[in-house]
Amino acid sequence: MKRGHSSHRGRGQELLYDADIPTPTHAERARTLVAGAKTATLCTLFEGNGTPYGSFVTFALHNGHPVFLVSELAEHTKNLRLDSRASLLVAESGASDPLANGRVTLLGKCVAVSEEDQESVRENFLAAHPNASYYVDFKDFSFFRLAVDQIRYIGGYGRMSWVESPDWVTAEADPIAPVAGHILEHMNNDHASALLSYCKAFSKAGDVGEARMTSIDRYGFEMSAKTDKGPRPIRVAFDESISSAKQARVQLVELAKRARLEVGDAE
Amino acid sequence: MKRGHSSHRGRGQELLYDADIPTPTHAERARTLVAGAKTATLCTLFEGNGTPYGSFVTFALHNGHPVFLVSELAEHTKNLRLDSRASLLVAESGASDPLANGRVTLLGKCVAVSEEDQESVRENFLAAHPNASYYVDFKDFSFFRLAVDQIRYIGGYGRMSWVESPDWVTAEADPIAPVAGHILEHMNNDHASALLSYCKAFSKAGDVGEARMTSIDRYGFEMSAKTDKGPRPIRVAFDESISSAKQARVQLVELAKRARLEVGDAE
Repeated sequence: MKRGHSSHRGRGQELLYDADIPTPTHAERARTLVAGAKTATLCTLFEGNGTPYGSFVTFALHNGHPVFLVSELAEHTKNLRLDSRASLLVAESGASDPLANGRVTLLGKCVAVSEEDQESVRENFLAAHPNASYYVDFKDFSFFRLAVDQIRYIGGYGRMSWVESPDWVTAEADPIAPVAGHILEHMNNDHASALLSYCKAFSKAGDVGEARMTSIDRYGFEMSAKTDKGPRPIRVAFDESISSAKQARVQLVELAKRARLEVGDAE
Repeated sequence: MKRGHSSHRGRGQELLYDADIPTPTHAERARTLVAGAKTATLCTLFEGNGTPYGSFVTFALHNGHPVFLVSELAEHTKNLRLDSRASLLVAESGASDPLANGRVTLLGKCVAVSEEDQESVRENFLAAHPNASYYVDFKDFSFFRLAVDQIRYIGGYGRMSWVESPDWVTAEADPIAPVAGHILEHMNNDHASALLSYCKAFSKAGDVGEARMTSIDRYGFEMSAKTDKGPRPIRVAFDESISSAKQARVQLVELAKRARLEVGDAE
C-alpha cells in the first residue's frame, strides 16, 4: 500500500510528531473526497467554439471514473458530442473558510458509455441516485463516462499536487470517512482527557492545555493542540489500518490506555 | 421594469392562477442566485491545450461581472494568461433533489482588472470576502474580471433559458432574497390559515386542504396547495413591488384581510 506525505510541515515551526507516520496519500485523499460527493461541475467546450462551459451535474464513480446520466437536450451533452474533452470539479463544503475545503479536478475525455458497460454503470449510478430511476429509461437520456487521465488535488491551503493516474485508479476511498464526523464529535464531547493523554504521550508538545480531534482516517487521527506557542497539529498513527467505526474504537481505547501508562495519568 | 415569464405552466394541467401576474424574469432570478453565492466553479482552458479545466473559486460581483482574487501560482491563472476564454458556474444548494436547485453559467473573457477599476473591484471583493485582506497585497495575487457576454440560467426542472446580456447587466438581485427563508418559516409555522385564505380567495383551486409558502420575491409569493388533484402551485402578486421584510409583512397582512373578506372566513 502506498502511503505518503505528511501534510503539516508547519511554517518554520518544528513538527510536534514524527513526519513519517502513515498518512493518506493525495491519491487516497482525492478518491475519498470524490467518493463522498454526488454533485459536481462538469466542464465542457461550448458548441465546439472552444469556450469552457461549466454545468451542474450529478455523478457516480465507476472504477474510479465519473459517470453521468445526461439528456441530449442539455448543453453539456451537445458540447461533448462535438468535443469529448472535459473535466469534473468536485468540491467539499463545510469549512467556514471556503478555500480551506478540499477539491479535485479530474480531466479526461468524456464519451457515451459502451454497450458492454451499460449495465454496471447503470447499477452504480442508480445506487448513488435512486431518483434517476424515473427518467433513466427516457429515450433522450444516456450515460457518459469521463475517462480520467489527469488529476489535480487541492486539500486546502498549501496542500496540493498532481496525482498520478495509476495512483488515482488504484487508490481506495477511506473506509472511515463516512463515520469520521460521528467519531470526532464523540471524542471531542466525551473524551477530552484521552485526547490530552495522546498529545502528551505521543508528541513533543509537552504542556498541552486542550486538544481537539480534527480528522480521522484509516491510518490514524489528527488533533489540534493548544500549546504555549498557539494551536499546533499532532498526528497519531494506529497500530494497523482500520476499516470500521468498531475498529476505530478498539484502537482509540488501546492507544488511550497506553498513553496514560506512559504519562502516568489516571482518569 | 421588465417582468416576464410565469414559471408553472403545469404539465397539461390548468393553471390555478393568472399566468400573467408579475413574476421575476429569468435575468432577475439569475442575478439573485449569483448575488447570493460567494463560491463557484471557474472554467478555463488548460495550459492552452484546449481541455476545459474546472477550479474552485471565491468571487464577488462588480457591476454584474464576477471578479476574482487569484494567485499567479494557481492553474486557472496560468490558464487565463494563455487564453482568456472562461465561464463561471454558480449553483444553489438546499433542495433535497440536487437537480431541483438553480444554477447559472456566465460565459465571457476573463482578464486582469484594469488599473482604473482596481479600487472599486478591491472594495467589492473585500466586502464579500473580508478574510482575503490577509493576502490581497501579496505580490503574486491580482484581480481578474469575467466580462459576461452569455448567460445560461437553469432554475430547476424545466425552467431554463439563455438570458440576454443587456437584461443580465440591468437586472437587479431580488431585495427580498436575503430574508425570504425567514418569511417562509414564519408564514408556514404561524399563519397556516392565512395561506389557506390566499388560496381560496386568489386562485381557482377551490377546496384546498393545506397550503405552504414555497417562495417569496419582490413581486409576490408562491404556495404549494394540497388539492384533490394533488399538490399544485399558486402564485399571488403583491399590489406593488416590495424591497424589505417590513414591506412584505404589510402586504401579506393586507392580502390576508382582503382574502378573508372575499371568502368570508374569520380567524
